[in-house]
Amino acid sequence: MNFSATSDLKEIRDLVNKELLNFVAAENKYLNEIASELAPVASAMERFLLDSGKRLRPLFAYIGFLGTGSKPTIEILRACAALELVHVCALMHDDVMDASDTRRGAPAIHRAFEAMHKINKLSGSAEQFGISSAILLGDLALVWSAKMLHQSGIDGNVLLAALPMYDEMRVELMAGQYLDVYEQALASESVERSLKVARYKSGKYTIERPLHFGAALGGANSKLMKSYSDYGLPLGEAFQLRDDVLGIFGNPEETGKPAGDDLREGKRTVLLAKTMELSDAKSKAAINSALGNPNLTLAQVEEVRAIIVETGAISEVEDLITSLTSSAQSALEHGEIEPLAKSALTQLLTIVTVRKL
Amino acid sequence: MNFSATSDLKEIRDLVNKELLNFVAAENKYLNEIASELAPVASAMERFLLDSGKRLRPLFAYIGFLGTGSKPTIEILRACAALELVHVCALMHDDVMDASDTRRGAPAIHRAFEAMHKINKLSGSAEQFGISSAILLGDLALVWSAKMLHQSGIDGNVLLAALPMYDEMRVELMAGQYLDVYEQALASESVERSLKVARYKSGKYTIERPLHFGAALGGANSKLMKSYSDYGLPLGEAFQLRDDVLGIFGNPEETGKPAGDDLREGKRTVLLAKTMELSDAKSKAAINSALGNPNLTLAQVEEVRAIIVETGAISEVEDLITSLTSSAQSALEHGEIEPLAKSALTQLLTIVTVRKL
Repeated sequence: MNFSATSDLKEIRDLVNKELLNFVAAENKYLNEIASELAPVASAMERFLLDSGKRLRPLFAYIGFLGTGSKPTIEILRACAALELVHVCALMHDDVMDASDTRRGAPAIHRAFEAMHKINKLSGSAEQFGISSAILLGDLALVWSAKMLHQSGIDGNVLLAALPMYDEMRVELMAGQYLDVYEQALASESVERSLKVARYKSGKYTIERPLHFGAALGGANSKLMKSYSDYGLPLGEAFQLRDDVLGIFGNPEETGKPAGDDLREGKRTVLLAKTMELSDAKSKAAINSALGNPNLTLAQVEEVRAIIVETGAISEVEDLITSLTSSAQSALEHGEIEPLAKSALTQLLTIVTVRKL
Repeated sequence: MNFSATSDLKEIRDLVNKELLNFVAAENKYLNEIASELAPVASAMERFLLDSGKRLRPLFAYIGFLGTGSKPTIEILRACAALELVHVCALMHDDVMDASDTRRGAPAIHRAFEAMHKINKLSGSAEQFGISSAILLGDLALVWSAKMLHQSGIDGNVLLAALPMYDEMRVELMAGQYLDVYEQALASESVERSLKVARYKSGKYTIERPLHFGAALGGANSKLMKSYSDYGLPLGEAFQLRDDVLGIFGNPEETGKPAGDDLREGKRTVLLAKTMELSDAKSKAAINSALGNPNLTLAQVEEVRAIIVETGAISEVEDLITSLTSSAQSALEHGEIEPLAKSALTQLLTIVTVRKL
């Protein structure tokens, strides 16, 4: 297979998208052979993958591989692309757990299947049908990820070397997601605890583990693994902190979620914990009445935003993002990483903390 | 490792249980290192696995391996045991989808976490917390299964040979589960459609694919694979039909579910489709008012049972079970399967269609 190594992020992302769509098209053909009733599952999976998505995990994995100096192949790229399907599972299940209505500007999967139930006047609860469908589509995405990795065409020994990282990443994701759900239920206001949740549910899973996975595919030594942790762990936390800021201040057109959605969902983020820490009784009361309120108005969102700014919580979080990012930058400068990969990781550093691609 | 080959089903099941508990104990230790808040997850997983369970999938996989004539090892047994964790995922998610209150005589996972939310007076919706927890525990079980298989200690090439079967089994399970959910929503009364759903969601996944998985671990040829299909496909359908009968007529002490639970959940089984086919308008109305009724009384269950018996639907289904079982039996006699494995498969044939172990 003719394959020219590139460290251009957009080019890699395009290749990742192409491999994902090829895989899903083949699997959908198979689903259709099982039963034509699976057509809505197949098209929902395809649509979900086509809708934007930054492909951060495949990108980090592939750059992690390039950092080892091994020669990339389309098979390696395909193996890295498989990580995206783990993320698809996480997003679909997350939306059920948060009872989110939208994802990437479109109805969340459970809402889409709920609507299909209503339009076709099916029997039983439309809401329950939506939830069941989203659970199963998420499960299927998780299984597809493994299948795509297994049949990527990479050498068997290379696959065996990377599987432990792949498993670790998925266990940490599920553990982190549970901690997140539990944290909301505790209504925790601890900054320290929120940071820990952020580390597991998002940081390690988005950056450190994909880098390790790619590194394992390239036969990395433990020194490179360590450099990737030194870069990935602080950057992962910075990534989640940026996500928290966008969850309250983000432009719906860019986030694909309504304004202030994290407030509506009652998310206990680091930003919110900081704000509570710095708030007086009146501000605390205003925040508490907004948190988890499904009928939150834009005016209430604005009020909470003002408190976050006035208390200085936003500056503290922005400072934290800056300092975590600079730790990551410094790890990059001191680690022994191939120059092309180093340059791509520097770009990614900006992308995940500023969030444009 | 000293390992004496056995084809005694109880002995294999004990070994499978031991391996599962060892694995889960090690994983739980790791969860606890991440955060002490994960303790309820760890203990729920352990309890769920300790609560009975017939371990049918590991048994079929292991016997499928023995049928190849290859020499078994504890590592192979461990790889086969990993299939049980796929089933744990299926059961946990199934109970959320069916809104079941109990599993194996204990509260379903989502109910157990809902209760924990209430006891600890956590904030937000207890029901939603229960559902989120069960989704994540099921996801974790699915990931653990793969991890247990990957680190079973079997040879890398043997693992690579078995992964395609493992993936196929999981894709078919999720597809079958969706067809099942969709079938309930269609309120389908088609016997043919119900049979197809039964084949995917339960038959192939419980018997044929585990046999293939074990066969692949043992380096089987395509002839043996074919024999396993000839045995596994009809037996898988018979297994699901027995499940349907038990879902309405089963003793709660044996099924671990309330009497007539399939009626309460509105399950569109083959047994029910046959009954509708043979019912007059009055009986149909009685069934329809029972189906999916969460407040179903024992008297209503008895009424539907009487209709199922009087219409002759139960005898038709029992005849179908008998004829499918005898197809499986005959495949066993004509296939080239090692004698010890053949004898174990004969015992399993009775176990899955009569359901005792």
